[in-house]
Amino acid sequence: MNLTPMKRVTIVTESLLVDRLQDDILRLGASGFTTTLAEGRGSRGVRASEWEGRNVKIETLVTPTVATRLLEHLAESYFENYAVIAYAHDVEVVRGEKYR
Amino acid sequence: MNLTPMKRVTIVTESLLVDRLQDDILRLGASGFTTTLAEGRGSRGVRASEWEGRNVKIETLVTPTVATRLLEHLAESYFENYAVIAYAHDVEVVRGEKYR
Amino acid sequence: MNLTPMKRVTIVTESLLVDRLQDDILRLGASGFTTTLAEGRGSRGVRASEWEGRNVKIETLVTPTVATRLLEHLAESYFENYAVIAYAHDVEVVRGEKYR
Repeated sequence: MNLTPMKRVTIVTESLLVDRLQDDILRLGASGFTTTLAEGRGSRGVRASEWEGRNVKIETLVTPTVATRLLEHLAESYFENYAVIAYAHDVEVVRGEKYR
Repeated sequence: MNLTPMKRVTIVTESLLVDRLQDDILRLGASGFTTTLAEGRGSRGVRASEWEGRNVKIETLVTPTVATRLLEHLAESYFENYAVIAYAHDVEVVRGEKYR
Repeated sequence: MNLTPMKRVTIVTESLLVDRLQDDILRLGASGFTTTLAEGRGSRGVRASEWEGRNVKIETLVTPTVATRLLEHLAESYFENYAVIAYAHDVEVVRGEKYR
């Protein structure tokens, strides 16, 4: 069984950012992404007013190097002015070499 | 890169519980949550009849302490009478200190 | 707190495969699954043309043995002819013994 250790990065944010973020993800080295609609609410930490509408959850499978690059880019470019949640965790991917 | 180790707790359940669970999550110490619509089916373990309609998946990023508190609460309050799946795993969160 | 270590397997694929894959998942030993609608895009690695429409994300909680069996089945049966992404990671499940 050919399983490749990779990172799954999950980003939850305002839907108005979805096109920009998807472009960022591909530009920074991911080979694709999956986007789902979501509703969110934050009692503190994220600004509740910006979470009332439709949000999106974007997920991508990337190498650890691309994960770090992507998370740093998100923190630098979006965290100050937008409600963005971003996190990563280890996954084992079937034939993951094609995402590298 | 400021990454904070946290737990992501995922709850999949009947849509009729969504408001109660979201209130529980905030009351027990989470700073927010993300909810998506889902369809589910269980061949055993969960009662299939209750999974025919719309289900919801609620995800929240919390500290390990809040994760344990939340999972215990779910087991005590809902598992006997409702179809609830709940699980947790480790994640690395960008600027995670704001969710604490 | 009764937490059982299990695997969460995530499959992202074309919506036309959803019924077949859900049947496969149950037949290979899972007790259920959760399905959400998703949009995806691949710049390389997955064939972009097949990702333009609606995709689905199917998630299931299984034992490590069932996870390996399921991932091997996906690789052998679908990877050559369909756009399928499949990966697994460890989770801690509340009362997970009922999914075994």
